[in-house]
Amino acid sequence: MKTVSIFGTGNVAFHMIKAISLLKNFQLHQVYGRNEKNLSTLCDQFCFEINFTSKLADIEYADFYLVCIKDDAIADFIEKIAHPNIICMHTSGSLELLNKNCRNAVFYPLQTFSKESDLNYAEIPFCLEAENESVLEEIIEFASAISDSVHKISTEQRRSLHVSAVFVCNFVNHLYSIGEEICQEKKVPFEVLKPLIKETALKVQQISPKEAQTGPAKRNDQKTIANHLNGLSSEQQKTIYQLLTNSILKNYG
Amino acid sequence: MKTVSIFGTGNVAFHMIKAISLLKNFQLHQVYGRNEKNLSTLCDQFCFEINFTSKLADIEYADFYLVCIKDDAIADFIEKIAHPNIICMHTSGSLELLNKNCRNAVFYPLQTFSKESDLNYAEIPFCLEAENESVLEEIIEFASAISDSVHKISTEQRRSLHVSAVFVCNFVNHLYSIGEEICQEKKVPFEVLKPLIKETALKVQQISPKEAQTGPAKRNDQKTIANHLNGLSSEQQKTIYQLLTNSILKNYG
Repeated sequence: MKTVSIFGTGNVAFHMIKAISLLKNFQLHQVYGRNEKNLSTLCDQFCFEINFTSKLADIEYADFYLVCIKDDAIADFIEKIAHPNIICMHTSGSLELLNKNCRNAVFYPLQTFSKESDLNYAEIPFCLEAENESVLEEIIEFASAISDSVHKISTEQRRSLHVSAVFVCNFVNHLYSIGEEICQEKKVPFEVLKPLIKETALKVQQISPKEAQTGPAKRNDQKTIANHLNGLSSEQQKTIYQLLTNSILKNYG
Repeated sequence: MKTVSIFGTGNVAFHMIKAISLLKNFQLHQVYGRNEKNLSTLCDQFCFEINFTSKLADIEYADFYLVCIKDDAIADFIEKIAHPNIICMHTSGSLELLNKNCRNAVFYPLQTFSKESDLNYAEIPFCLEAENESVLEEIIEFASAISDSVHKISTEQRRSLHVSAVFVCNFVNHLYSIGEEICQEKKVPFEVLKPLIKETALKVQQISPKEAQTGPAKRNDQKTIANHLNGLSSEQQKTIYQLLTNSILKNYG
């Protein structure tokens, strides 16, 4: 039985605690958080008891340290907790592999985490990087215990995935927000758009987004495009509509 | 048993034929398509026999005509087939209610249709509009036989839903395409992004997109934003990244 400690109190930490609690061969050892209140709020959400601390001095030995804190705090923090016998992983999509002469690694889960969502951990892609093969093997074993989607990924590839994720998750969600704004303006329930949102995401699980493209820009239907632009009341929305329409026109023109 | 004829040979026609074939109280009567080849290709896909024609003169009487053809052809076509005893519905998101002194109506399914997808018809929102209450009642009965999500929607509201749909479906899909492009460039499998795409869409089924927003722009993480812009090789991608980032910054700043 190997032990894992979690560092951080955010959504990634929450789901990693949950994921580890379901494993047979890995056990949660300790949870560390700088902020006592956030830490106890996090640990109180679980039905099992958690050994937690907010003091650096009380951090105990474990086989794996999984650091789920903000990117700009990771380097300094890992400097403090690094230990020659402990595999210390960060979960950042953009940060390099740190402290190469310790047993450090990258353990990047490519998913959007919120406490509201029940995630199927077996489906989460874990993008792994390590200084050497022996560390890599150990983190592959850990990641494979959680998920069926484990990938050895270079720093450069991980950074590309991270920026892609901004397009397909953060920006996509912003377009959902704009859809909701338009609905609110005309007092149409946003509910009505939800099946379309779901189906649009499910479609590209089967076919390439290039093939899945539909809509007035794809058809070069200038009349509908002009009507839509006319109907939008916000300049911001118009600018986004125009830019994305032009981008689709360029790709399919 | 009421009868329904379908006009058109595209994806909407395909799924409406399929949806009607599952109903008890409504029966498919005839399928019309202008293009003989497309028409027979469409009808050959079904395991049941279909009465089809490409001749206007052979169009038979049915209780409902469901016109699933391109927006700019609808008005002229309905002019040709309109009949005082037949409820004639078009499926356009943007076109007005036509030929008001016939029994015309709007039957707008708010979904993206492709032949590859198995759709749960019970979940498709149908947005209905009719000249008078009696026609409305009849089309509500028909739509309710297919779906649990039936809405009486004004022309103006329908147009807003249509432009919202461009944002949450067509533009969203274009962002998926960009994600795929970036992956291809760095030889990372696009597969890795698919669970994220799915979860992003599922999240807003439960919580508002405003609450669901995450990412560097939401956090005003200028360092990551600069790194991402630096890493993008296409000017098009950079412009879209910058505009959507600014739009998120404005909303949450």
